Formats: sequence, C-alpha cells, structure tokens
Amino acid sequence: MLTPLTASPGTVSAATADPTLGSAIYEHAATMFPICRSITGDGVRETLRLIDSKIPIKVTEIASGTQVYDWAIPDEWTFRDAFIADSSGNRLIDAKRNALHVLSYSGPIDTVLTRAELAAHVQTLPNQPDLIPYRTSYYAPRWGFCMSERQWQSLPDEPLHVKIDTTLAPGSLTYGEYSHHGTTSEEVLLSAHVCHPALANDNCSGLAVLTALAHAMTGIETRYTYRFLFAPGTIGALAWLSKNEQRLKNFKAGIVVSCLGDSGGPTVKKSRRGNTLIDRALAHVASSNFKDATIRDFSPYGYDERQYCSPGFNLPVASLQRSSWGEFPEYHTSADNLDFIRPEHLASSARLLAATIDVIEDNWTPVNLSPKGEPQLGRRGLYSAPTPSGGAADNNMATLWVLNLADGDHSLLDMAERSKMPFGTLAFAASRLRASGLLAPATTNSRAQ
Amino acid sequence: MLTPLTASPGTVSAATADPTLGSAIYEHAATMFPICRSITGDGVRETLRLIDSKIPIKVTEIASGTQVYDWAIPDEWTFRDAFIADSSGNRLIDAKRNALHVLSYSGPIDTVLTRAELAAHVQTLPNQPDLIPYRTSYYAPRWGFCMSERQWQSLPDEPLHVKIDTTLAPGSLTYGEYSHHGTTSEEVLLSAHVCHPALANDNCSGLAVLTALAHAMTGIETRYTYRFLFAPGTIGALAWLSKNEQRLKNFKAGIVVSCLGDSGGPTVKKSRRGNTLIDRALAHVASSNFKDATIRDFSPYGYDERQYCSPGFNLPVASLQRSSWGEFPEYHTSADNLDFIRPEHLASSARLLAATIDVIEDNWTPVNLSPKGEPQLGRRGLYSAPTPSGGAADNNMATLWVLNLADGDHSLLDMAERSKMPFGTLAFAASRLRASGLLAPATTNSRAQ
Amino acid sequence: MLTPLTASPGTVSAATADPTLGSAIYEHAATMFPICRSITGDGVRETLRLIDSKIPIKVTEIASGTQVYDWAIPDEWTFRDAFIADSSGNRLIDAKRNALHVLSYSGPIDTVLTRAELAAHVQTLPNQPDLIPYRTSYYAPRWGFCMSERQWQSLPDEPLHVKIDTTLAPGSLTYGEYSHHGTTSEEVLLSAHVCHPALANDNCSGLAVLTALAHAMTGIETRYTYRFLFAPGTIGALAWLSKNEQRLKNFKAGIVVSCLGDSGGPTVKKSRRGNTLIDRALAHVASSNFKDATIRDFSPYGYDERQYCSPGFNLPVASLQRSSWGEFPEYHTSADNLDFIRPEHLASSARLLAATIDVIEDNWTPVNLSPKGEPQLGRRGLYSAPTPSGGAADNNMATLWVLNLADGDHSLLDMAERSKMPFGTLAFAASRLRASGLLAPATTNSRAQ
Repeated sequence: MLTPLTASPGTVSAATADPTLGSAIYEHAATMFPICRSITGDGVRETLRLIDSKIPIKVTEIASGTQVYDWAIPDEWTFRDAFIADSSGNRLIDAKRNALHVLSYSGPIDTVLTRAELAAHVQTLPNQPDLIPYRTSYYAPRWGFCMSERQWQSLPDEPLHVKIDTTLAPGSLTYGEYSHHGTTSEEVLLSAHVCHPALANDNCSGLAVLTALAHAMTGIETRYTYRFLFAPGTIGALAWLSKNEQRLKNFKAGIVVSCLGDSGGPTVKKSRRGNTLIDRALAHVASSNFKDATIRDFSPYGYDERQYCSPGFNLPVASLQRSSWGEFPEYHTSADNLDFIRPEHLASSARLLAATIDVIEDNWTPVNLSPKGEPQLGRRGLYSAPTPSGGAADNNMATLWVLNLADGDHSLLDMAERSKMPFGTLAFAASRLRASGLLAPATTNSRAQ
Repeated sequence: MLTPLTASPGTVSAATADPTLGSAIYEHAATMFPICRSITGDGVRETLRLIDSKIPIKVTEIASGTQVYDWAIPDEWTFRDAFIADSSGNRLIDAKRNALHVLSYSGPIDTVLTRAELAAHVQTLPNQPDLIPYRTSYYAPRWGFCMSERQWQSLPDEPLHVKIDTTLAPGSLTYGEYSHHGTTSEEVLLSAHVCHPALANDNCSGLAVLTALAHAMTGIETRYTYRFLFAPGTIGALAWLSKNEQRLKNFKAGIVVSCLGDSGGPTVKKSRRGNTLIDRALAHVASSNFKDATIRDFSPYGYDERQYCSPGFNLPVASLQRSSWGEFPEYHTSADNLDFIRPEHLASSARLLAATIDVIEDNWTPVNLSPKGEPQLGRRGLYSAPTPSGGAADNNMATLWVLNLADGDHSLLDMAERSKMPFGTLAFAASRLRASGLLAPATTNSRAQ
Repeated sequence: MLTPLTASPGTVSAATADPTLGSAIYEHAATMFPICRSITGDGVRETLRLIDSKIPIKVTEIASGTQVYDWAIPDEWTFRDAFIADSSGNRLIDAKRNALHVLSYSGPIDTVLTRAELAAHVQTLPNQPDLIPYRTSYYAPRWGFCMSERQWQSLPDEPLHVKIDTTLAPGSLTYGEYSHHGTTSEEVLLSAHVCHPALANDNCSGLAVLTALAHAMTGIETRYTYRFLFAPGTIGALAWLSKNEQRLKNFKAGIVVSCLGDSGGPTVKKSRRGNTLIDRALAHVASSNFKDATIRDFSPYGYDERQYCSPGFNLPVASLQRSSWGEFPEYHTSADNLDFIRPEHLASSARLLAATIDVIEDNWTPVNLSPKGEPQLGRRGLYSAPTPSGGAADNNMATLWVLNLADGDHSLLDMAERSKMPFGTLAFAASRLRASGLLAPATTNSRAQ
C-alpha cells in the first residue's frame, strides 16, 4: 500500500500526505452513496452538488435528443419513489431504503399484481441470495425491480401494490468538470463515472478520490492542466468528447478511475496505444509501490476508456482500479456498500494518483556535464548522503544510475524503468546532482525546470 | 481437440464437419499402409493410385540420372520379395508380411548363410526388442533386413535361405499433385512425403488427411490455389522445386504435414521466416483450439520444410504434426501401425488445417466507419446477440475488439492475436458489423469481399 | 565448469588446455596475495613486478596532483608497518601478518592509547566475528585498524602501543599494461584492478588469470590486439582512459574481470550498450558451458566497467566474475583468502575467457554456395562424420544450421544464438563445409580467413 512519500514540498504527493485524507474521502463517498443516480436526472445533479461543496465544478447540461456521434441524448429520468407494498400498505421493497431496488431508467407503474404477475419484472441473484443486483435498461423501455432472492422468496402470496413513480421525458444530461490550471495548454484528463446508484466502490470511491485529489492540488503549480470530469458512463463521456473535440489534441494523458476503495490490486489497464507517458508512469508507480499490482494491456471493455480509446480518438488514456470490475463478488450488487470500501485504500489510491502526477510533472531528461568516468561524488558530499526516504545505499545507486544514463536520451522515467528503482529516488538524486552542477536539463519537459 | 466449428457455409471448416470424416481418413490410410514404398518405384505409384481414387492427381516422372540441384535422381528401386527361410523353406522373416523387414533400397541377394554370417546385414532395436526398425540406405549400396530383436534371437542356428528380390536400375522418380484452383494466381503448398513403407502415422496419416482435405474443398471458392503435393522425402521435394522454380514466387504459404494421426500435440513448427501469414494462422488456430499445442521456431531438421526453407528458396512453409518426429517411442518402428493412429485425431488434424485455410482465406482488414466512440450496438441488434458458436458475451467482446482495432492497420488475424480470441469469433462479429454498415474493408485481401 | 575443448590448434582455447594451468595460476595468485596494496604505492609496483615475471609489462607512473577528468591523482601512500602492541611490546595486531589490519590509505600514528580511546579507529564485523574487514579511506584523511570482532574483544585493557608507519606524500599512481599484438589496429581491453590487499578472489584471481591468459596467447596470431590492463580501481582506470583517449575508438570490446577463483557463477554483466559483440560472445560461452551461468544487464555499480561504460566513453566493455561481488559472505573480508580460491575454478575462468576470445576471433559470416535445397552431404563425407568433440548427431545438426542460415546475413555467433548450439560446434561444421566448397565467406571479419 502506498504510504505518503516524504515528498518534496510543492509536489502533489506532499499535498496528499495528510493522515486524515482517507477518512475525509470516505466521508465524502458516504454522502454520495445513497443517491438514486442514473445516466440523467437529479441524482447526477445532486451528486455534482456534493462534489461542488469541495471543489468548484462547472456543470454542463445537454438537451435530450442532441445527437452525440452515433448516439442521441436520451430522455431525462426523474425518480421520485418506487416500492412494493402488501395489502396493509407495508413497504416490503422500498427504493428509498436502497436505490438498487428500482431498475435504473425504469418507466412508471402503479398497479396491484400477484407475485406471479410480478415475476417477469423482478431480477435477483439466485447464487448470491442475500444480495440485490444492480440492473439498468437505458435504451429499452421497461419497468422493474431488483431485490435479493430471499426478499423475492419472502414476498407474500397476496395482491401487491407495485408502484414506480418515475418520469422519462425530454430534459437533459448533466456532467461536471473541475480544472486545475497549469502553466501550459497541455491537459491531463481524470475521469470518473457518476451514474451508478448506491454502489460504494463503483463509483462513489472514484468520485471522492478525484475530488480529494483536485482539492489537494489547490495552489500547486503544475505544468499540465488537470481536467477532472464527472460524467455519466458512455453517453456522458461521448457528450463531453463531442463538446471538446477541438481541444482533444491538447490532452497528453488521462486516467479513468473507478473502484478505488477496496483492498485489492491496484489494477492498471494501459491505453490502447500502450506505451504512452501515462501508461508508463502509472505502471511504474503502481508496480514499484504495491506488490500485488497488476498491469494489463488495453482491452475494449470496462469504463469510459472504451470511448476515449476508440479509434477515432485514440487518446492516451489509461485506467486505474483496485480490484477490477467483474472480478470481485460484490461487483454490481448491494454488497458493494460502505463496508466494502475503507479509508486506507481510498487514501492509498489518491496517493497513487498523486505520485503518478508527480512523475509526469517531474520527469525530465538530464545531461551529465562530467560524462567521462564517474565524477568524484565524495568531495561534493553526494556519496552516502542522507535522503528524505530510503537509505544512503539507495541514494548512491540512484546517483550512479542517473549519472550513467544522463546522455540526453533517457528521461528519469526511462531510468526508473531500466534501473527498477522508484522514480522519486532517482528524481531526488537528480535534483542533488543538478544542484551540484553535475547535470543540466536536455529538455524542458518538467515543472522542475 | 478441434471439433467442427459451426462454421459459415462455404468455408473449408464447414466442409470438414462431417462426423464420418475421421473414419473415412482412417480407412484410406489403412489401404496405403502395407505398401512397400520407398523414394522411387512402384510402391510410390501404387500409393498415388490410391490417392487418385479420391482426388484426380497429376503424376510426374523424372528420369534416373536427372540432375536436381546438388543431387541426381537415383536409380529406381523395384521390390518384389524379401525373406529369410529355414532349411525347410519356412519363411521366418517375410517382407510381404511387413514391408519394414527389407532395408529400404536394399540391393538383391539370394544365398544361404549362417546366422553369424547374416548378422552384419540385420538391424534391430535391442532396447525395444519387440519392434522392427525402419531403416534405409538410399545412397550407399547395401543389402539388409530389419527385424525385432526377439525375431533375431529366435532365428535358428542352421543354414538360412536369404533372398531379397529387388532391382536397382535406371527408371524414374514419381510424385503426384492435386490443385484446387482459386480465383488468384497466388498459391498455397500442402506437402506430404510419400516414401515411407508401413508406417501409419509417418506418413499414411499425412497422405490421407491431405487427400480428404482436398476432397472436402471441392466446389469451395477460394482466393488462393491450393497445391497438394505427394512426393518422396528430400529428393522428391527437390525434384518438385526444380520443376516449379519459376512459379515459386506465387507461393504465399505452405504447410508440410506428417504424423497427423496420434494423440499428441499438435506441434506447429514455424517457417524459417518465422512470422509469415501461415506461421501466424497455424499457430493461432492450434493454440486457440488445443490446450497442448506446441509452437516451435524453425529448425533445419525434420521433413521437407528443410528444402522449402533452404536459403535459396526461403519459402513461407511451416509444418504441422501431432507428436513430433523422434519424440514418440513408436517413431520409425513397427509400432507406428494402424493401432497407433485414430480416426478422431485424423479428423481433428484435417479440421485444424481447414480452420487454418479459412483464416488465410477470410482474413481482412476492416475500417470502422463510426470510429468516434463506440457505435450504439443495441439499436442495431448487435449487442448480446446470438452467435453460431460461443455465447453472447464472446460476441460482445469480439464486436468491441473489432470496432476498437478497425483503424485500417489491423487485420482480423492481428486482432485475434492481440485479443487472444478465436479468429472465427472475430470474423463472425466483423461480418455482422459490416452487414450493419459499421465496417468497410481497408483491403481486398479476402474471399469474404 | 569449462573443461578444455578439443580445440583447433592455433586457438586460445587450445593454448589454455594444459591441465597444469589451474595450479600455475593459483601459485601466481598466492605470491601476490600478502602484499599490502592500495591505489598507489609500492604495493602496486611489487605486484606489477610479479606479473612482469610472467609477461613483460609496460609500467606507467602518473604524478600526484595530475588532473584526471573530475579527479586528481592523490598523494602516494607508502606503507612500512602497522601494529598494536601490549605494554610488553607483543604485537597483538600486526599488518605484516595480514595486510587487511591497516585501514587502506591510513595516515601515520605512533602513540599509546587505552582500548576505549582506540575504539573510534577500529573497524570490525560483529556479525562475522572471526573475520577482518577490508576498509579504505582514500579521500578522507584518517588513521585506523581493521580486525576481527574477537580480536577487538580480546585486546587487553591496558595502555596499547598503536603505531602506523605510513607516509602520504606527493609521488605517483602506477599501472601496468601488456599488449598481445594482432593483425589489425582494433583492440580488446582486458582489465583487472590491482589495488586490493590480501584478498585472494578480489582480485589476485583476476590478476593471475589475465597474466596466464596473456602468457598462453604468446605466439597465437590474432586479428585483434589484446590490451591487458592492471590498474588501481576507479582512479587507475580513469588515469588510463585519460592517457588513451585518442585510441579508445579502436577498442571494439572489453572485459573487466575480478573474483575469478571461487566456485560460483560465472556471472556475466553486459556492457551499458548491452548487445555488442563481447556481450553476446561472453554470454554465449558462459551459458553454453555452465549450467549456473547468470547473465545480467548492465548496472552502474561494480568494478571499472563503471568508468569504461560512463556516458562519455560508453565503451563495449562487459564484466566477468564467478560469484558476484557483495553476494558471497567472504567478500571484502579476511575469509577471501587462499583457501577460498581453487585452481580448477581459476583454470575454468581462464578457459572461459579463452573461448570468448576464440568466438570474437573466429566469428565469420558464411554464404551457402549451394543454397537451393540441402546439398548432398553424404557423398562429401559430411554426414554423420566424426568431430573432435560431441557426437555425429551434433555435427549433423550444426551442419544443417550453418547451411540453412548461411545467407550472408548471419554470422556464426548469430547462428549459435538462434540454434542454441555451441559456437565451437558450429564453427567446426562451417570449416568443414568451407573446405568442401559449400561455403564462402561473406565478410572477412575473421582470423579464420
């Protein structure tokens, strides 16, 4: 697990070192958890307001019917209430108690049915009989309920009052953005889907981690502009792409995040291009800090990297999760709740992102100004010298690696990959060598310059 | 084991789906088994006639003494009889009972010898005492017998009548060819050696599988012309090469087959060039259908790929076997008999070849006509739709892979390699996407177009 | 372990086949062992004289204060005596008994101290209480003793006479060179550090192995000139580089050697460039002859490859050890003594270097003059023919590999790597094919031509 580096002041890692970070993220996720979100509607707007309470976000509304590439913005879904009540009016199933109970995008109904008549409109998980599944029907008009198999089995054999009070009508799709402005016009996208109801890991965790990261970056000078996007899955990402198509050439990197609060992973999925700066930085930080890190090649299933990495855009957007979607039993069930995510994992995920940002910000390509043989480190106090983290031996090794590879063809990230040493250790050694006059930058690709 | 795909009509895979295929191949192999074949002579001609009973082959005779590159066609070997009899005239060893008993290309002898005098002309396998070895002496004039060690030990210590009734005299070398004509002048070579006597796997299996495959392809429209070659090992392949040298530039792919009837493997050996279309197609089909498939790099020992892949030709010719030659104890012994090969393995080998042909025929490079984001599959009935084989989930994944990689730089085979999904599943998804107007061909490298 | 190949006359391997080689190297190492060497001074000169008794070396002296890149040649260290005596004058610690007792480059002292006062000047290994550590202080003026923890604990609690009779004063740094002249101006560097006192493996072994190798090469015609360098670590290598900078472009390969007498490894560390001729040759010879060979990528720590491979030189210099420095418990302790190195390992190391030299000398690129199909080997006596080492099967396989890859694009070393057959087996097959007129050289990169 990534604990805060003793990071240089002014870095994003340093800004995420606060030991209360995890609990703050958790509390924020918990406030977003119960909302009945879907791909449109007030659930999204309310969630964006909770994010806006931490960082000022810009909200965009796109009208139903607007053509977005191969898609059209659907009618807006308004949810007010959904329940199944017995003949005494007792609510046996109540979407106000758990937003998963209503099929997402369900149309309205208000009738009395027998259990048998209701069956075609109920989804359960017979193999996980205590869990409510999460199900949607965005583009095929239906009404329905989700419940646990035990709930379904216990519904009484009597006339049941079945009511779903929703509206599907022209309105708009909503997404929110926050920008941390950098010194150049180059941008980095950090994207989390905002459409899932009452699933803590997928994706209250991602929303809260990005919010905390954006907040922590306040006041930190960066080279890149960081665009935080909170948008409904697929259609929201497509809407954002269509609104930003002229700016996409500025996007030099991106990460789609979800499921950042469980104990697994982390799991890095590379972009379609596979070897871009963000792919390498994210893979390096994950694998040098987590023994269980998994680095996967791109595949065209998952979250909104599917859209960003479609062949017409082919953006350098990787993705990050802890356990990967579909590979943990709690996925898309009521067990993905606030017990499933933990403050320490949320903090660790935020720090992984912070360290990755520091890599892309602080990567630079040094040139050894004393390249013939090793320079005499001892007389400059550079040998076996103290470091903020790690021992003198690590610092010596990092110093030698940097000097050896500082031929103008290797960035610090190249060196980290070749030496298998942490980027931060090499960057620290490089900064000391530079301060001693032994290195100069070959490039100006760095905040550090 | 490769069972028939629910393949599209008109494919070679569909044409090999007949459940009786294996027994038909086996019966054909069995008729060829007992013949006393060698690199020249009537044994070859009789074998070619048995093939001609299934598919019309063109027979070529090349006269003894003809120079073929560094070699000359040898005198023709005519076998009539070979036996060792006791003083009562009982045949103790009889090449009519097992063609392996006579050293292949043995000169004639007719004499009476003691067991001790005979010893220098007898070859056995002391470590496999019940098996008769297969031995040849094509280019060093000798006479001799092969027998089991037990047979040798049981020969009586009395004058033995030793007779080999063979002729080595000017004649010719014989090979046969069958062509399945395609719509272009580009050719694919399928080559099996026809020179081994009484060895079922090596190579009655290869001869019978190629015959059945050629027969099954009748009436199927192909892009490539498929040239089936049944030629004696080494000298036969060289003779064919010398006769076809001007046409070799048309040969875009080839497979040398042998040992296709046992339960092992399959074993794919790549061509010297290592990454040609046939190397990739054969490796993909083998490894995606057989858990025990072995893919090997080229080495210059084996069968006639040695000649096709010599540096002066360097043809893209891979090879296919089940168990690899020399790695099963039955190899080149009397245990390589009709009990060693099984109909199901013969059928599976034929289908592996058929599926490989379908890959090279059906490979094409699509371009996504809706490349910005994913197109909306649901409204086109392309999502979670039924497929002829595999589940809807596979079809969805294949559909997403094809759309994502359809940038004009990836053929379906490229996609199969990257996605690790079966070519056929991707090809099916691609055909549906094309029918929906979402894909167009970037190239015209396909029967499918 | 590398036993002598039945190598062709005139090769370096043949010249190192003498079964007494190991004991001769061992005896030579043993004479050098006790000398109190450091990076300057008479210890180096005396060691070079012992080498000169076997091969005539050229000695270079570089005056103290001379600037060498980022360094200056330090004052020369003269050692005469160092001891700790009790009040009766008994020497309890005596650098004449073990040169490790005096801190290398220790300044002088002559005083009486209590044990407590002495403590700050004593270094021990508490975890290896019977061993004396090897410690230096080249560039920070200090005085001190090294001893075993048990010796330290047993020093009596009485006034101790502490005397180090050394001088640090302007003088010079000394290194020695021996050149085996080749037929071209291209050079190969073989470099061993000459500065460590009383450590048998590190590096009396390296000095003695290189001396024996140079001696064995006497009279052997080589293409390359072999420069054997015996220089103090770091500062000596830098001094040599500065004196030879104009000639460095001639150096096509190099190996830094140390620790060649223990039972481990061998360990090959590639040059910074990683895939040069010497990297490939050394890796091939080591891994095809030793089952425990380890091939490592370059890292910028170790011996003088650090200087040769610094970015301003980036020479193709690999390194060779048995056990790698720092990875055996005897490293830099009094346990690295004459019991730790064995004649058989020294001989094996010398032969590994000899075989590597033979690879770079004898590597050539053949062209098959009968490239269409295999030539008929049998009629030329090239099939199943006897070889000086290995069986006929190996020779057949090597012959086929050479013929197959002899397209002018593959050297014999390329073939060895692709076939995983020993270079010598392929070279033998190639020489026979060439003698038969089946091969011609595409290049003239070989002593063999």
